[in-house]
Amino acid sequence: MSDSEGAGGVSERCGIVGVVLSREHVALSLYYALYALQHRGQEAAGIAVSDHADAGVGGESVTLLKGIGLVSEVFSRQQIAALRGTMGIGHVQYSTRGATRVETTEPLLVTYRNGELAIGLNGSLVNATALRKELERDGRIFHSDSDTEVIAQLLAKDLMHHTPLEAVKELMRRVVGSYSLVILLDSSVLAVRDPLGIKPLCIGALKDESGTPTGYIVASESPAIDTLGGELLRDVHPGEVLLLSPPESPRSPGRARQKGMPFESHQLYRGINSAHCIFEYVYFARPDSVIDGKLVYDVRLRIGERLAEEHPVEADIISPVPDSGITYAIGYARCSGIDYMEGLIKNRYVGRTFIMPEQSTRDTAVRLKLNVVQANVAGKRVVLVDDSIVRGTTSRIIVDHLKKKGAREVHLRIGSPPIIAPCYLGIDTPTRDELVACGRTLEEIAAFLHADSVRYVSPEGLIEAVGIEVSNLCLGCASGNYPVEIPGEQCIARQLRLSHFT
Amino acid sequence: MSDSEGAGGVSERCGIVGVVLSREHVALSLYYALYALQHRGQEAAGIAVSDHADAGVGGESVTLLKGIGLVSEVFSRQQIAALRGTMGIGHVQYSTRGATRVETTEPLLVTYRNGELAIGLNGSLVNATALRKELERDGRIFHSDSDTEVIAQLLAKDLMHHTPLEAVKELMRRVVGSYSLVILLDSSVLAVRDPLGIKPLCIGALKDESGTPTGYIVASESPAIDTLGGELLRDVHPGEVLLLSPPESPRSPGRARQKGMPFESHQLYRGINSAHCIFEYVYFARPDSVIDGKLVYDVRLRIGERLAEEHPVEADIISPVPDSGITYAIGYARCSGIDYMEGLIKNRYVGRTFIMPEQSTRDTAVRLKLNVVQANVAGKRVVLVDDSIVRGTTSRIIVDHLKKKGAREVHLRIGSPPIIAPCYLGIDTPTRDELVACGRTLEEIAAFLHADSVRYVSPEGLIEAVGIEVSNLCLGCASGNYPVEIPGEQCIARQLRLSHFT
Amino acid sequence: MSDSEGAGGVSERCGIVGVVLSREHVALSLYYALYALQHRGQEAAGIAVSDHADAGVGGESVTLLKGIGLVSEVFSRQQIAALRGTMGIGHVQYSTRGATRVETTEPLLVTYRNGELAIGLNGSLVNATALRKELERDGRIFHSDSDTEVIAQLLAKDLMHHTPLEAVKELMRRVVGSYSLVILLDSSVLAVRDPLGIKPLCIGALKDESGTPTGYIVASESPAIDTLGGELLRDVHPGEVLLLSPPESPRSPGRARQKGMPFESHQLYRGINSAHCIFEYVYFARPDSVIDGKLVYDVRLRIGERLAEEHPVEADIISPVPDSGITYAIGYARCSGIDYMEGLIKNRYVGRTFIMPEQSTRDTAVRLKLNVVQANVAGKRVVLVDDSIVRGTTSRIIVDHLKKKGAREVHLRIGSPPIIAPCYLGIDTPTRDELVACGRTLEEIAAFLHADSVRYVSPEGLIEAVGIEVSNLCLGCASGNYPVEIPGEQCIARQLRLSHFT
Amino acid sequence: MSDSEGAGGVSERCGIVGVVLSREHVALSLYYALYALQHRGQEAAGIAVSDHADAGVGGESVTLLKGIGLVSEVFSRQQIAALRGTMGIGHVQYSTRGATRVETTEPLLVTYRNGELAIGLNGSLVNATALRKELERDGRIFHSDSDTEVIAQLLAKDLMHHTPLEAVKELMRRVVGSYSLVILLDSSVLAVRDPLGIKPLCIGALKDESGTPTGYIVASESPAIDTLGGELLRDVHPGEVLLLSPPESPRSPGRARQKGMPFESHQLYRGINSAHCIFEYVYFARPDSVIDGKLVYDVRLRIGERLAEEHPVEADIISPVPDSGITYAIGYARCSGIDYMEGLIKNRYVGRTFIMPEQSTRDTAVRLKLNVVQANVAGKRVVLVDDSIVRGTTSRIIVDHLKKKGAREVHLRIGSPPIIAPCYLGIDTPTRDELVACGRTLEEIAAFLHADSVRYVSPEGLIEAVGIEVSNLCLGCASGNYPVEIPGEQCIARQLRLSHFT
Repeated sequence: MSDSEGAGGVSERCGIVGVVLSREHVALSLYYALYALQHRGQEAAGIAVSDHADAGVGGESVTLLKGIGLVSEVFSRQQIAALRGTMGIGHVQYSTRGATRVETTEPLLVTYRNGELAIGLNGSLVNATALRKELERDGRIFHSDSDTEVIAQLLAKDLMHHTPLEAVKELMRRVVGSYSLVILLDSSVLAVRDPLGIKPLCIGALKDESGTPTGYIVASESPAIDTLGGELLRDVHPGEVLLLSPPESPRSPGRARQKGMPFESHQLYRGINSAHCIFEYVYFARPDSVIDGKLVYDVRLRIGERLAEEHPVEADIISPVPDSGITYAIGYARCSGIDYMEGLIKNRYVGRTFIMPEQSTRDTAVRLKLNVVQANVAGKRVVLVDDSIVRGTTSRIIVDHLKKKGAREVHLRIGSPPIIAPCYLGIDTPTRDELVACGRTLEEIAAFLHADSVRYVSPEGLIEAVGIEVSNLCLGCASGNYPVEIPGEQCIARQLRLSHFT
Repeated sequence: MSDSEGAGGVSERCGIVGVVLSREHVALSLYYALYALQHRGQEAAGIAVSDHADAGVGGESVTLLKGIGLVSEVFSRQQIAALRGTMGIGHVQYSTRGATRVETTEPLLVTYRNGELAIGLNGSLVNATALRKELERDGRIFHSDSDTEVIAQLLAKDLMHHTPLEAVKELMRRVVGSYSLVILLDSSVLAVRDPLGIKPLCIGALKDESGTPTGYIVASESPAIDTLGGELLRDVHPGEVLLLSPPESPRSPGRARQKGMPFESHQLYRGINSAHCIFEYVYFARPDSVIDGKLVYDVRLRIGERLAEEHPVEADIISPVPDSGITYAIGYARCSGIDYMEGLIKNRYVGRTFIMPEQSTRDTAVRLKLNVVQANVAGKRVVLVDDSIVRGTTSRIIVDHLKKKGAREVHLRIGSPPIIAPCYLGIDTPTRDELVACGRTLEEIAAFLHADSVRYVSPEGLIEAVGIEVSNLCLGCASGNYPVEIPGEQCIARQLRLSHFT
Repeated sequence: MSDSEGAGGVSERCGIVGVVLSREHVALSLYYALYALQHRGQEAAGIAVSDHADAGVGGESVTLLKGIGLVSEVFSRQQIAALRGTMGIGHVQYSTRGATRVETTEPLLVTYRNGELAIGLNGSLVNATALRKELERDGRIFHSDSDTEVIAQLLAKDLMHHTPLEAVKELMRRVVGSYSLVILLDSSVLAVRDPLGIKPLCIGALKDESGTPTGYIVASESPAIDTLGGELLRDVHPGEVLLLSPPESPRSPGRARQKGMPFESHQLYRGINSAHCIFEYVYFARPDSVIDGKLVYDVRLRIGERLAEEHPVEADIISPVPDSGITYAIGYARCSGIDYMEGLIKNRYVGRTFIMPEQSTRDTAVRLKLNVVQANVAGKRVVLVDDSIVRGTTSRIIVDHLKKKGAREVHLRIGSPPIIAPCYLGIDTPTRDELVACGRTLEEIAAFLHADSVRYVSPEGLIEAVGIEVSNLCLGCASGNYPVEIPGEQCIARQLRLSHFT
Repeated sequence: MSDSEGAGGVSERCGIVGVVLSREHVALSLYYALYALQHRGQEAAGIAVSDHADAGVGGESVTLLKGIGLVSEVFSRQQIAALRGTMGIGHVQYSTRGATRVETTEPLLVTYRNGELAIGLNGSLVNATALRKELERDGRIFHSDSDTEVIAQLLAKDLMHHTPLEAVKELMRRVVGSYSLVILLDSSVLAVRDPLGIKPLCIGALKDESGTPTGYIVASESPAIDTLGGELLRDVHPGEVLLLSPPESPRSPGRARQKGMPFESHQLYRGINSAHCIFEYVYFARPDSVIDGKLVYDVRLRIGERLAEEHPVEADIISPVPDSGITYAIGYARCSGIDYMEGLIKNRYVGRTFIMPEQSTRDTAVRLKLNVVQANVAGKRVVLVDDSIVRGTTSRIIVDHLKKKGAREVHLRIGSPPIIAPCYLGIDTPTRDELVACGRTLEEIAAFLHADSVRYVSPEGLIEAVGIEVSNLCLGCASGNYPVEIPGEQCIARQLRLSHFT
């Protein structure tokens, strides 16, 4: 999936992080962690920190800073330095529905009966509209159309009569969909992963140069932990809630936390099955991420090898569509024995204010971003490897460009199955009639893309490469079967078992 | 009160406007009206317009644009042109509590059960904290600490079971304090003035060059009407709610609106007394405003004359503190026969990013803004006229500067009584211990200010100059008696009589 | 002349300042001085400081900071703090020819044979094009079309073989026109005023709170000196060059400077006559400026009185066009005995990005800035006082507005003679056919302006009010006779006498 | 050479472009071409266009737009649309000496005797200071310290008595160093490459979709041509000057241009030898560039293969330092048979305002940009391939990180010889004592870098891989022998033969 696809429509591709430190100010750590998650959202960024020491009873202790743009654009050194507090959460946003307004960016900070509450969400609720209507019927108002505000209202309601953990448990009972959450609440950070584990979330330990523990971090992806010099401990389990507070904090001497246990874990829901999003492995995550125990780089390399086994072709070079197809292409080349050679070079400098061609064809737009290395493709049979094809419009132009520069044959090899159905759980895909693979044979797709052949990795091959059983994956976009009930769609219900409080 | 005073603390000095037009887009009219109200708030500005034609059933039709800064800084020509809709509201904000965040600026736009709702407030609720706690106890959340959000929640709750008018009536029953409101709701603009009429609000008619009626405008002050070439019809009455919709709108053919009646008036509450804020006349309003039937310029001129009668002094020149004292000084000079002569010239270019002196004395800060015209004051006995004195720190420095430049005597004459108590109803005044007049005799005040004498207009003189009976004015800051109950303060209860729906 | 006139065309209305301090960094002083001169130019601002201590032999020691916008917009606190050096110059710019580019703003900083040279100019050279062509014929290049670059090239050429003073003397021999200059050169600041003294320039002494001298300042107007708490010493004489360096600088122990003489004065040219610009008094300068010994406020007050004597009229109120007509109106009211009353209120918040009406009439544009106080004018005979009338378009609309609001009669009284000829020496006036007074009788002008009468102060009255002999004033715009030769125009040659070096 | 090296010091790494079109406005084409050259300079960008049709005799027809930042930041759609003209030049700037001021960015636009002249330079003059002093001795001034201004002054001088071609010939006789130039002059664009061809420059033909020729483009690198859908014709020859004007322009009917010859070529100097910069191939150019007939991608691939032949090592994976080492690593892997595997992932989102760690070690700074893929390196023997090593500080940290994550051995293989001498001709390298390879044995370098071994490609291997004879290359930084005379350095004089005008 080349980046120029996507855009438009609903999307909840985001990155979240939460950090608690024993002593130091947390803001710069959150900033660097968000920077490591920048690929998950470039539209907006936000940080909320809590300075518990400064807050009186019911006092306001949370400071929020957010804005439109990249992490490096939103925050200045002075602003980060002024954010006082040892625990906090952060968020990068892919896009909002329609125009991005600051009001719809995250973390969302609200006050409620007991104080303040800040929330960052990665995911998409399937029943948000129904919940919103229910809350509105109760006379409540909404400042935005974000799922996060629905979550905030539900939480605040339940916090009236319940502990934070109970309130989160009730929240999880009500909302349906994908959600990884970081919640800054009172004097702790809660990390929540939905019972199906659709969106990733992991936890790491931080220490200083002498090896002394300094705190903990939860993040959408493990490179955020690496960036802070921390150690990935494990994934947050589906249905699990983590309660983080500073280690050895002199402020919570009486806390009933087991010695040696750095954070509290509460497995609120325990599913027999999970539904990890296949697209995190295929496209969305960084290659250096470890998600649910699997290194994404490895997964992609294996998919590439499998593609070569399943769909060999006589060719002169294996070229990726940069950057999305690179690791797949390396795997394909290694397995096929055909030379890996870059047929396309990507220009990395497109900024938000870049002037895209208006009246001219989409052709120019692609050429501005991807340039064909003529000498590498002229007269050659090219295997062009990419991670996925959505609409196919960009792929077709790339094939055209390769042929115009003399490529004798262009064979597309794709690291995911045909995408034939929309995603309702957080990946930005269009409706069925815009999906090139929906209702077309392989030959028809190849004809549409002007390619000599198009082949996709088989679902079995993909699943083997990922190394997770199919019953624990969500392949909704490739199968049309979804792990949660969606009106008008098929559902392969996952078996969930309600766990007791630990 | 020179501008460099004030700042810090709570403040709800704001300006509001609502416009409905029959055909044209309303955004530019709102922009110009806000510009005419710019003196009421320079911190932030916002416009919300409704394009009823574009909205389907329950569809989103309100577009909101707001930001930090002056009207001319917040909106670009392109943005105004893109705001489609024939009715809308606008708001300029003086300052928010603490740092200004976009989330706390107005209009506040929320969705609720029946659609969308935008609100702009000028005023300050006395029972906001209590109402907020009550709503929080009901499990509700707040995104900001603004009174406007309290109002939005109350309204949305009541709109569940009531018509807009009934909901506003219920709202007015619950909130205590000063409030002029513009509400953009469904297909109409509502204008609300609190039962005591503390903050100003007036209504005008708009017409095109041929004299054909084109719509209506409600605004904090009448110059907003003048700026659009409109005609001031009258003040909104205390306790009155106006329902504005476009005249002869083809979209509302069946509306039960009397022929010739341009807007619906509902006198929801009818007080025997009002409590018009005296400071609107004395300091806050533009001199060309007509508030509750009184031209502010005239009021100030008469106060100046009265001051001269009450507190004559042998002197060579009458000089204002610019700009706040100008009209008073003209009146004083006219009545006393002493020459009006500007002893101080004001530099008008201070911007928000102006570098004020850090370590040096406040002295330099004043000199940067006000320069003494030495030849006009040297060797002279100067009557220095200003509208009010709050802390007195700036006044003292001005007196010092005049004397340093050779003024033989400096006699302060002030167009308001001594300010001895804080304002809880919308004017930004400090606590008692910061008020120079609180607990000091006139001689002690003069000594503090380094002046040869200080005299204030008498309450009687002030009231006569305003031309409104004392029972219909709020002089809380000068008397310590407030028209609403405030814990720990004295209250002169106004007599309110609940009116029936018209 | 209301501000909305002007604009377009060539203009050299600028403000300049130079400061030398014995010890402190000079940047903040320059910033505040420029702020006091902001009315002389709002388009751009710049500061150049020299840190002589840091410079080696031929080293670069001058730091320049400039940009588009107001003083408060161009410089940040951090940037001012980073400008190290004890002497420097500053400049505010009214407008450049065509679009403002940073390259054409001032100070202009160049390197030349002996080091660095920064220049700030207020004025306009009549022979700039000829000099430029001459320099270009010599193979030189120009980076902009500013007169300042011509001056820089001439200076640099002469500095090859001459001392700075000799080079300035040669420069003054070559250039014709109006020019006040500040030059930052090596380890001193030079201040230059043209032999006719057309543009103002004055010098002041700075001292600290204990009264110890700390340095000197030259500036276009004396309020810049006041703002720094300094003392106006005197005007720079026409044809005089001042050489300022820090008092008691330990770095220049051997400097041949007379004990007790704070700066070197060199009367390079001594004219029998001067040609002080009348418009500085009438319109351009601040009222609190003392220019060539005359307080501008006094001059304007006397003009107003004289106007009343020369052109009395039966009327009910005297109203100024704010702000330009205020002091005149005070004078007129005082002399006539008719009440001073503001019939128009000015909105002060127009910013550079303000959206002016596009298609609608100029009418709206005026109404956005000036609002009629209906009660003050309705049914009244109004004497409307202003400083000058150029095109007359704005004046006509103001008269229309007054009449529309019920003014019975409107009599214009103008504090300057009819402007019938363009200015070539630094005031931004249009060509003859755009001047309303050019070729029209008083009755025709009144008819054009829709006024009941129009009267101008007589040249004699004006000259008496200024208090400078006519042979020492430039009234080119009112007479068509100019003090320097301008092709196609009449010239009343001033008698110049070359003085010897002092 | 990882990007975090470099910075500081003098640098003339820039990109230039010139385009002439027959009919269309040229600004958007220049914008896209500059975007394709963005890797050559991210500090500033500028475009100058000439609208010859609009200019009268001696009239101003050139419009210049430039600013600090990326191409996408400097120009808005509206500004590009407003740039009218069919021919123009553009420039991206790597960095200026010291702080970047708009005055020192390019194109430089000046007026001279015959009109206007805009210049964009890529290169560095060795005798700039001498030439500047000579010009200053002649009384000339400089607005900046750029070499471009020296060139502008020399050109303007010679254009007094000579044709543009003669003036350029004289310029080339005077200046010594590396320079590729685009000059916008009167009604044509001149493209100049220095007689040694040190910096690249190529020419391409543009055509519309129907294949009709629409104009020509000269650019630093061929991808700028590709981006516009044009065809690379050839490199500009060392010592050649191209004169471009629109094809079939109805405005130049009588132009003595040979039929079928799209632009005039003038081989002003013809050298027996060239001195193409080796670093353009090794590091600076895009991989998809064709420079002097060689595809950079191919060159790097061959160097990688050669490295594997010359310096084999037993290892488990071949990993590049991204992005600089990628193509080399692919070549090394292909030749060695060892798996290509990415051990490091680069974060691409560092912006200009990114907050780099202040007090902490450089360690964190590297980790923010490059993350180790632990699973790919743990327990493995890693061949880490990069293009070059300058200071070695970043390389050492990378090696440390790899080892910390479990790499068993790290062997550095470098695609260029040891850099032992500074570059005076346009590459940003430090002085000798900062160069890690200067005065160290391979073992000492390995020890310094904490690597198990370090090996560089041999000069012979490098030269063979480039495919250009050593006598036509500049390897000054690797040999200390330079192709032009530099005081204190050795010079291998190239043989130049003055050619006659064609």
